[in-house]
Amino acid sequence: MNRTTKVSIIGASGYVGGELLRILSRHPGVEIVAAHSRQHAGEYVHRVHPNLKGVIDLQFTGEDPVKVASNSDLVFLSVPHGTSVKITPKLMELGVRLVDMSADFRLKDPSAYEVWYHYRHPYPDLLDKFVYGLPELHRDELRNARYASAPGCNAAAAILGLAPLARHGLVTNGTIVVDVKVGSSGAGGKPSPATHFSERYGVVRPYSPAGHRHVAEIEQELRISSGRSYTIAMSAHAVNIVRGILSTSHTFTDSGNMDQAKIWRAYRETYREEPFIRFVRDKKGIFRYPDPKIVIGSNFADIGFELDPHTNRIVVLSAIDNLMKGAAGSAVQAMNLMLGFDERTALDAPPLHPV
Amino acid sequence: MNRTTKVSIIGASGYVGGELLRILSRHPGVEIVAAHSRQHAGEYVHRVHPNLKGVIDLQFTGEDPVKVASNSDLVFLSVPHGTSVKITPKLMELGVRLVDMSADFRLKDPSAYEVWYHYRHPYPDLLDKFVYGLPELHRDELRNARYASAPGCNAAAAILGLAPLARHGLVTNGTIVVDVKVGSSGAGGKPSPATHFSERYGVVRPYSPAGHRHVAEIEQELRISSGRSYTIAMSAHAVNIVRGILSTSHTFTDSGNMDQAKIWRAYRETYREEPFIRFVRDKKGIFRYPDPKIVIGSNFADIGFELDPHTNRIVVLSAIDNLMKGAAGSAVQAMNLMLGFDERTALDAPPLHPV
Amino acid sequence: MNRTTKVSIIGASGYVGGELLRILSRHPGVEIVAAHSRQHAGEYVHRVHPNLKGVIDLQFTGEDPVKVASNSDLVFLSVPHGTSVKITPKLMELGVRLVDMSADFRLKDPSAYEVWYHYRHPYPDLLDKFVYGLPELHRDELRNARYASAPGCNAAAAILGLAPLARHGLVTNGTIVVDVKVGSSGAGGKPSPATHFSERYGVVRPYSPAGHRHVAEIEQELRISSGRSYTIAMSAHAVNIVRGILSTSHTFTDSGNMDQAKIWRAYRETYREEPFIRFVRDKKGIFRYPDPKIVIGSNFADIGFELDPHTNRIVVLSAIDNLMKGAAGSAVQAMNLMLGFDERTALDAPPLHPV
Amino acid sequence: MNRTTKVSIIGASGYVGGELLRILSRHPGVEIVAAHSRQHAGEYVHRVHPNLKGVIDLQFTGEDPVKVASNSDLVFLSVPHGTSVKITPKLMELGVRLVDMSADFRLKDPSAYEVWYHYRHPYPDLLDKFVYGLPELHRDELRNARYASAPGCNAAAAILGLAPLARHGLVTNGTIVVDVKVGSSGAGGKPSPATHFSERYGVVRPYSPAGHRHVAEIEQELRISSGRSYTIAMSAHAVNIVRGILSTSHTFTDSGNMDQAKIWRAYRETYREEPFIRFVRDKKGIFRYPDPKIVIGSNFADIGFELDPHTNRIVVLSAIDNLMKGAAGSAVQAMNLMLGFDERTALDAPPLHPV
Repeated sequence: MNRTTKVSIIGASGYVGGELLRILSRHPGVEIVAAHSRQHAGEYVHRVHPNLKGVIDLQFTGEDPVKVASNSDLVFLSVPHGTSVKITPKLMELGVRLVDMSADFRLKDPSAYEVWYHYRHPYPDLLDKFVYGLPELHRDELRNARYASAPGCNAAAAILGLAPLARHGLVTNGTIVVDVKVGSSGAGGKPSPATHFSERYGVVRPYSPAGHRHVAEIEQELRISSGRSYTIAMSAHAVNIVRGILSTSHTFTDSGNMDQAKIWRAYRETYREEPFIRFVRDKKGIFRYPDPKIVIGSNFADIGFELDPHTNRIVVLSAIDNLMKGAAGSAVQAMNLMLGFDERTALDAPPLHPV
Repeated sequence: MNRTTKVSIIGASGYVGGELLRILSRHPGVEIVAAHSRQHAGEYVHRVHPNLKGVIDLQFTGEDPVKVASNSDLVFLSVPHGTSVKITPKLMELGVRLVDMSADFRLKDPSAYEVWYHYRHPYPDLLDKFVYGLPELHRDELRNARYASAPGCNAAAAILGLAPLARHGLVTNGTIVVDVKVGSSGAGGKPSPATHFSERYGVVRPYSPAGHRHVAEIEQELRISSGRSYTIAMSAHAVNIVRGILSTSHTFTDSGNMDQAKIWRAYRETYREEPFIRFVRDKKGIFRYPDPKIVIGSNFADIGFELDPHTNRIVVLSAIDNLMKGAAGSAVQAMNLMLGFDERTALDAPPLHPV
Repeated sequence: MNRTTKVSIIGASGYVGGELLRILSRHPGVEIVAAHSRQHAGEYVHRVHPNLKGVIDLQFTGEDPVKVASNSDLVFLSVPHGTSVKITPKLMELGVRLVDMSADFRLKDPSAYEVWYHYRHPYPDLLDKFVYGLPELHRDELRNARYASAPGCNAAAAILGLAPLARHGLVTNGTIVVDVKVGSSGAGGKPSPATHFSERYGVVRPYSPAGHRHVAEIEQELRISSGRSYTIAMSAHAVNIVRGILSTSHTFTDSGNMDQAKIWRAYRETYREEPFIRFVRDKKGIFRYPDPKIVIGSNFADIGFELDPHTNRIVVLSAIDNLMKGAAGSAVQAMNLMLGFDERTALDAPPLHPV
Repeated sequence: MNRTTKVSIIGASGYVGGELLRILSRHPGVEIVAAHSRQHAGEYVHRVHPNLKGVIDLQFTGEDPVKVASNSDLVFLSVPHGTSVKITPKLMELGVRLVDMSADFRLKDPSAYEVWYHYRHPYPDLLDKFVYGLPELHRDELRNARYASAPGCNAAAAILGLAPLARHGLVTNGTIVVDVKVGSSGAGGKPSPATHFSERYGVVRPYSPAGHRHVAEIEQELRISSGRSYTIAMSAHAVNIVRGILSTSHTFTDSGNMDQAKIWRAYRETYREEPFIRFVRDKKGIFRYPDPKIVIGSNFADIGFELDPHTNRIVVLSAIDNLMKGAAGSAVQAMNLMLGFDERTALDAPPLHPV
């Protein structure tokens, strides 16, 4: 890159927007040209993201997204599902690169939007133009891609843990139970009775025991990875943290696959060179398995497993920071690939501990 | 009861011991004659259980448990697995009633101790003398029983949620995934690196992804309830709370059972008269499903479910205060039945909220 | 009391209202005849206070407060400052007893309302009819009183710690620094950006470094207790808990008063017979000083102190559960005195620990 | 600098050691040549600091500290008070630069060690050779200094807030109340009953209401800054967070100084060019005053104030991440100055939010 890439963020006042700003503020090859927020137009960024005081000296712009995009080389769309799809086609016409943080371009099958998101996708032809933004599964497609769709946070955690087993045929039962535990930041920054501190503190709250929309992308990505269909039985729980996801995937297999070496081999072959995948499985110590506490602030996905011979079960554990690897971190990693930067640029902050 | 029943607690310095003291301090038919602790002999109870300052004016005794028991009508044995079994036979010889808080007399099948607890049970003949202390499943046996064995905390949560479905044939897949989320108090009061605040705060830590010993009693109680065998695929996670358990049980069934009315009927028929079971399932509101936050300080077990037509899954959710319904509360409830008290005596404190 | 006292709560949907309901549900001499809430009229109480499911089977009433009061022997007014004063005179005309939870009748000096609450009190003549509802300072007046005004939560903590020293002349510097640390429940149940979990979690937030309105009642009560004027330099901080207040009062004195025995004597003489005051000061152990963690769920006020010879300072520490001793607990204690019940009725639940 | 500076850490297994490793792992001018820990010799660093897995591929060395230092250009001494003083003279003989994290060389007056640390300092002549490691107060001395002593965490917070006021004569009362609220990581990584999660969670625990040893360095630094003596009346409280300190300093002044513009001027003149000081004081918004939540993971010190005309009080609020600005961050900042690096090198990570 001879010149600095101009990047803007549409919907920069949410938590994912703030995280993009935080990461990009340290990216040597990128200039943030606009932080867009209709609601906060004219306010300083640090009034909404107080951590960025003294870090980013920008005001939110309320300009039309198309106008914003026309001055940018790459645009992050950090707006709600259903909103993104309304403006994306216009942005594509401008020739700008896009990383969409919403779900509107994650699924390849248009009919899946009717099943899981309850709307008819207005631009089914565009779906194939977006690469699913998990570099661990789609690195080659992301290199030089024009459009990427960042993964759902819970989906990212589950897929990263499961794809190697699916790919290597180590899950023989078609139904996988994915039980996720999520921090509050995944629900965004808008106050509500359910997010009122006194009501939210200390919960273990089943907020989506069935029907979670990330099922669609998990099933899609496992199918693409393995060439085989899996049915995901997912339940999501809100727990007493702000950042972090633990996905516990209960997979069942043939007894012949209950073999640690075989499973390690599957993981190693898939992720050997990955800069942001760590394997966590210790015989002793405090953090013997993945735990979101240990990835906070970083782009790492920690992956581990345990065998349960009582039930021929492989319990897959994956932990991420939902705002990083589960959203803004993966998005910037995808951007780095799209623009030809070193994939790790601006993403190499080690996790904080203890925190 | 014409006279006050003399009750003592062996192992009264642990969290379960403290909870027994707290509950019994308000029991009008019971006198606490001894709080036994070898380690804290001579110290005032409130030095170990600071909440009981001004509530209980007792010193721990270090006397021999047999001596303690000989002055008691009923003894709570709140000592570790493996310790209880060593002293129980001697206490039984005294003719005293017993409520054992350990696992040593929970299982009916002696060989299960070798599989799950890795020791050969020295008194297999005594196992049948103990009633499993969940009044919801064993009320008639507990009435006038001499010996009861309080349930494991995670097991209590899972069993209460699953037994009605198992009993009514609504779970047709033999393997049930039980994914539990547990507060720190279940791990007891002994400091360790893993329980050091800076290391334990904010975790979602898979502490027992496979091989959890409560599997044995869950399988036993479902078998007794339903006459059918189930295999439990259990994983346990430590979450960022002190009190409380949420058990998420993923059960699979035939499509014909995916019927709310049918499931409600199963729960209602089983628990209609239960003083401590609440059904929680709302269309709106914050607490639409069971959440341990809403039972803290009480003996309630909150139970609810959700249907997942995508996978023919009934997700069963059950929430308890692990020190109450999961330990001391169920134990006192069992004691009340054994001694002929109203079952709710000393257990009627409503949960605290918000807390 | 020959018959059950009919009690109603105006404003029963807030946290203090819920706590009153929780306590009164266990009061043998009282019948809750109405839980009033305009906003939630017609809804079941447990939809707003989920802990009370299975405990209280009432629906909120939206009837006019005067109508509600006319069927009651005693009314708790749990409405905001400024609202209470509008309806109180009408309720007084009905001859009903009142316990006002707002600040509208706490201060004796009408001009103090202009200074601290920024409104001109419309009924200055009524101020003297209300007894300040801290039984530890006003027990005799509360016996058979018709009207009581429950203390402010932070004020209750500070006053209980300071009054004995003031009364015994042990504070010789006229300015006392009161640095309080408060849980979220004191701010009530209404969602706002500042109480959004992701924003509120983990804070040590100075929400009122100066100008806190409870200064007025602390100065009033210390003056009444001691006959001397003190100036309170108060700062309040929101901390990462839901329930509980710690008040740290930094008082300065003459070196001759830096004498533990003398200070203990002052506390003992003042509180010797108090059922809800505990002195906490240990040489060893975890909870050597008061800590709100140890009073949760109870009506206890834990009080302790430390001497700082470096500055001739007596650091006074007092810890309460803000919804109990800091609001509903003190209010019911006052009610018990007003109605001739044993003061401890319905208030004897020991604190929970650990929680 | 033509070549990479060789840095080692003696006592690298504690939380401050881990934070030094985390920061230095991203320092382009520094090579970590040794992470020393007697207890963990031979273990991989990430076994103790699990966040550093995949970040630092070192094993702890158990070699003699003198040996370690002899291969280093600069040594961080992250060992307990009293231990540092025993090895420091030997290290000084080697000609190596030192940054001492303990208190052993913070105080200039040897007799202060007897008063506050209860030991007779064995090398009083060495005290003047160490620069107190707060760059905001001692930048010029730190440039090219050979020896620096990192500040105490609570002291750093208090001093940074108070020094500008003292320097500008805005505090006229000689006694300042410093009420600090601290996260658990300040107490280190060693388990104890008081740090056991179930006992530590949810506390507001006065752990040092009087006699806190940081008083000595606060008084020293205010004296050096202002040429006037202040007496610090300090109380420290453990709160329910892992990282972070809020210091609330209650200062009293003449009414003529109760002037916002005057106070702002004092702060601006002192800190105008500081890279890590932020002023936080807003009329609206959530974070109107400093709050440790907003500095987590960064080297920022957020400073603000409020005026209390009722008592002629200036309430000074300062918030830091205790492991960063309160320890390792300031230490690396000092190191950068000592070695001629840009002061901000490796310290420019923005805070995380929300977290």
